[in-house]
Order: sequence, then structure tokens, then C-alpha cells
Amino acid sequence: MEGYKSFLFFLVSSLVLGFTLVIFALVWVLHYSDGLAWDGGNAEFNWHPVLIITGFIFIEGIAIIVYRLPWTWKCSKLLMKCIHAGLHLTATVLVVVALVAVWDYHNARNIPNMYSLHSWVGLTVVILFFLQLVSSIVVYLLPFTPVSIRAALMPIHVYSGLLLFGGVIATSLMGITEKKNPPYSSFPPHGIFVNTLGLLIVVFGGLILWITTRPGWKRPPEHVEKDQHPFGSSADEDTTDYSKEKSDVELNSEARKRNLKLDEAGQRSTM
Amino acid sequence: MEGYKSFLFFLVSSLVLGFTLVIFALVWVLHYSDGLAWDGGNAEFNWHPVLIITGFIFIEGIAIIVYRLPWTWKCSKLLMKCIHAGLHLTATVLVVVALVAVWDYHNARNIPNMYSLHSWVGLTVVILFFLQLVSSIVVYLLPFTPVSIRAALMPIHVYSGLLLFGGVIATSLMGITEKKNPPYSSFPPHGIFVNTLGLLIVVFGGLILWITTRPGWKRPPEHVEKDQHPFGSSADEDTTDYSKEKSDVELNSEARKRNLKLDEAGQRSTM
Repeated sequence: MEGYKSFLFFLVSSLVLGFTLVIFALVWVLHYSDGLAWDGGNAEFNWHPVLIITGFIFIEGIAIIVYRLPWTWKCSKLLMKCIHAGLHLTATVLVVVALVAVWDYHNARNIPNMYSLHSWVGLTVVILFFLQLVSSIVVYLLPFTPVSIRAALMPIHVYSGLLLFGGVIATSLMGITEKKNPPYSSFPPHGIFVNTLGLLIVVFGGLILWITTRPGWKRPPEHVEKDQHPFGSSADEDTTDYSKEKSDVELNSEARKRNLKLDEAGQRSTM
Repeated sequence: MEGYKSFLFFLVSSLVLGFTLVIFALVWVLHYSDGLAWDGGNAEFNWHPVLIITGFIFIEGIAIIVYRLPWTWKCSKLLMKCIHAGLHLTATVLVVVALVAVWDYHNARNIPNMYSLHSWVGLTVVILFFLQLVSSIVVYLLPFTPVSIRAALMPIHVYSGLLLFGGVIATSLMGITEKKNPPYSSFPPHGIFVNTLGLLIVVFGGLILWITTRPGWKRPPEHVEKDQHPFGSSADEDTTDYSKEKSDVELNSEARKRNLKLDEAGQRSTM
């Protein structure tokens, strides 16, 4: 890996920052708010920021960069896909509980749902995230999709994933902005604390996007070739212009060689 | 250009959407608020969303994709750089007026400044944007910076620009979220209107990021070679691994050929 030390710096920074975000979320609800419970009150609502920050920001961030860890490059592509998908699924479970918590809280207090821009953008992001998850499992984990389609959809998969991650961060910032009790304008410690949390979320997002978009830190194609499992062929690396329809089973040695070439081009195609 | 029709579709969509955003901002302040004036009241504050949406979202979006327009590929790189920088400068002027308007409004009404997450993230973005603007003029427009440094900084230039653009969008969504008068929870037309504006801003951002990150839509290197002006050499295309220190003047034919090769690699480096 080129720039290994720089990679380590960004990786460690994002891990430390990710844990810090979760701790900040816990301090926010346990110290500055009414703790955590499932009682229809503030303590139930508080699961919302804790689970969103843990699942949709920290775990999602790790899911996005998991292919970049050089120690995993000797693992099979299929194993890495399962870890990638598993982290997304874990995040999904936490996000669903986070949404149920806020819905339940609203209903218990007769607060209308879906009136704020936070909820509009947030629900849009969650629905698109769920569609991305299901379609990606069908396309990249199950063995039915032809190689050409996997390759053609990869730029959209990467773009959508990163855009949704950005959408989650923007939505969380709106969520923090909505929590104005006590009023922020008097600079209460609570306000300064959550503003700091908001800034740290932005920095975490910036770190993850930097790590993901460095081409020198991508899983190199030669390692991909080792994995010939029909569930996880090398062809669903970031290739483009691979227009011939071939199933995974048809993927012969010649095609694999071509893939390795195309892979280099493909790395240009997916940020 | 590969996928020319698709490019046209995205370009026209983003232009139409960009104009729509400006019209929405105007309808927001002229129809749903107290209009525009410079009187220390709401009408002065209203310049803030109008100028931010016009300058920091619409014009910035165009500035980001201006190198992608295939009709400009016959123009010199220097001319395109001046247009790119000129659009950024125009945006800067509008943003400065937008900030003065809100500061003036706060001071006239004795509202504290800089208490919200919107203001924290927003001011951070503005300061970083200004630093990016000045440093980029020094590095890429003035003829002093060696080619190697231009090339080495290009991935950071592109990454920072796109991250700041995302930061502007997130900040604007927080700004919309803050404007809760009348209360949004009763679903007033005003609330639904600005929520729609927020969603459209997100879509506009998604379109610009899609156009920018498609490698097939980048200004091709062979056109770059035509421009031998010392103020705008071909070497500040998206090249990487160009570690030898050479000034623009030293850039001989051999180096230019190497650049063309590296340029291909460089396209992988900057999303």
C-alpha cells in the first residue's frame, strides 16, 4: 500500500473520533438529558441520537472503509463482502430501533410526525439506504447477477453509498439543530457540547470520505483474483466498460485477465 | 465524450434545478416572509438565504462542473481556470454580503451571534472556503508554484472543494431547520415550502457530485496539452506521483508526454 503511514494516521484518527462520537452521544443523553429508557418520554427519545450516531454514522463509516484495510487484502472477496454487508445490516437494525423510538415518543406525546426537514431528508435517506442494501445483496452477494451488470452498477453503488453517508451526516446536524431546549442562544454548556458533537461528526465524515476516495488505498486487483468463489467474483470490483454479458460461472481465465486491466480503469470510475 | 446524452441530461437537470432553487429562495422571502431590504429587520435577514442559495449553492455548483462542459475543452486551460476562479470569487462576494446581512440583523435585534451549530459549521466552511480560494489562486493561477507541487496538491484541491460544497449544503439545511416561525409541526404551507426547498438543495448537490465524479466526463488530457501558457500548464491537471520538482518553464516536451500518462493515473486520484 502506498502512503501506509498516512493511511494508518487517518484510520486511527477516524476510529478514535468514531468512538468519541458514541461517547459524546452517551454523555449528551445521560448527563445533559434524562438518560435512556423505553417509557414514551425523553429517555425513550434519547435512544434516537445514540443509535443513529452509533449505527448510521460510526458503524456505517467503518463499513464504508472496510475494503481499505490492507490486512484484509489476503482474505477472500466473499468474506469481505459479508463483513461489509454485515456492518450495514447491523447499522440497519440500530436505525430501525432509533426510528421506532422517536415515533413512539411522538405518539406518546401527541407530537406530529414528519413535519421537519430533518424527518423529510432523514426518511428519504433511510428508504434509499434500505433499497441500496437490498439491491446490493441481490446484485453482489447472491450468485444470479451477470458480471457485466455487477460491473456496470458498481459506480452507482459507490456513489450512492457515499452520498447517503453524507445525507446521514447532514440529517444528524439538522437533528442536533432541532434540539434547542434549553435555548442555545444563551450559550448553555449543553448547547456548546452538542455543537461540538456536530462539528466532530463533520470531521469524522471528512476522514471517512478521504480514506475512501484515495485510489492508492483501494483493495488491489491482484488480490481479488485469488477469490474464485461463484458468490464473489473479481468482476464486481470497480470495473467499467465491461459490456459483454457473462455470468460468474462463465468467467474464464481470459476474462479474469481482462478484468484486471479493466479494474485499473474502473478505479477511476468510482471516485 | 462518453455518455454525452446522459451528461446533457444531468447538466440540464442541474441547471433547471439550480434556477429553481433561486426562485424558491425568492418566493420564500418575498411571499412567505417580509421581502428584501437593508433595514436591520427580517427583510435584511432575508438576503442571507437568497444570497447563500444563489452564490454558495447554485454558482458554486456551476463553478465545480465548469471543466466538465465539453464545449469548453477547445478553450485554453488558463481561460477555464479564470472562469472557475471567477465563479468562486462571485460566490465569495455574495456570501460575504449574506454574512454581513445576518450579523447586522442580529446586532440590530440584540440576538447573540455564533450560538447555533448552523453558525459553527457555516463559519468553519466559509473560512476554509476562503483559504481554499486564496491558496488555489496562488498554486494554480500564479506562475510561481512548481509543477510537482501543483500536481501533488490537486487531489486535496478536488477533495476539499467537494467536501466544502457538501458542507455548504448541510449548513443550509440546518439554516432552514432553524427557521421555525411559524411552528412547523402544524404543517403550514410555509413549512412545507421550505422543506421542499431543502430536499431540492439535496438533489442539486447529488447531481453536481455525480457530474463531477464521472471520470468519462472529465476534461481529456489531450486538450490540455494545447495550453502551454506559463500561467496554466497542463501539469495541474489531476496528476499524482509526480514527485520531481520542475517549474512550468522547465516543462519540456518529454515531461509533457509523461504528464499525459500520469494524467490518466491522476484521474483515478481525485475521485
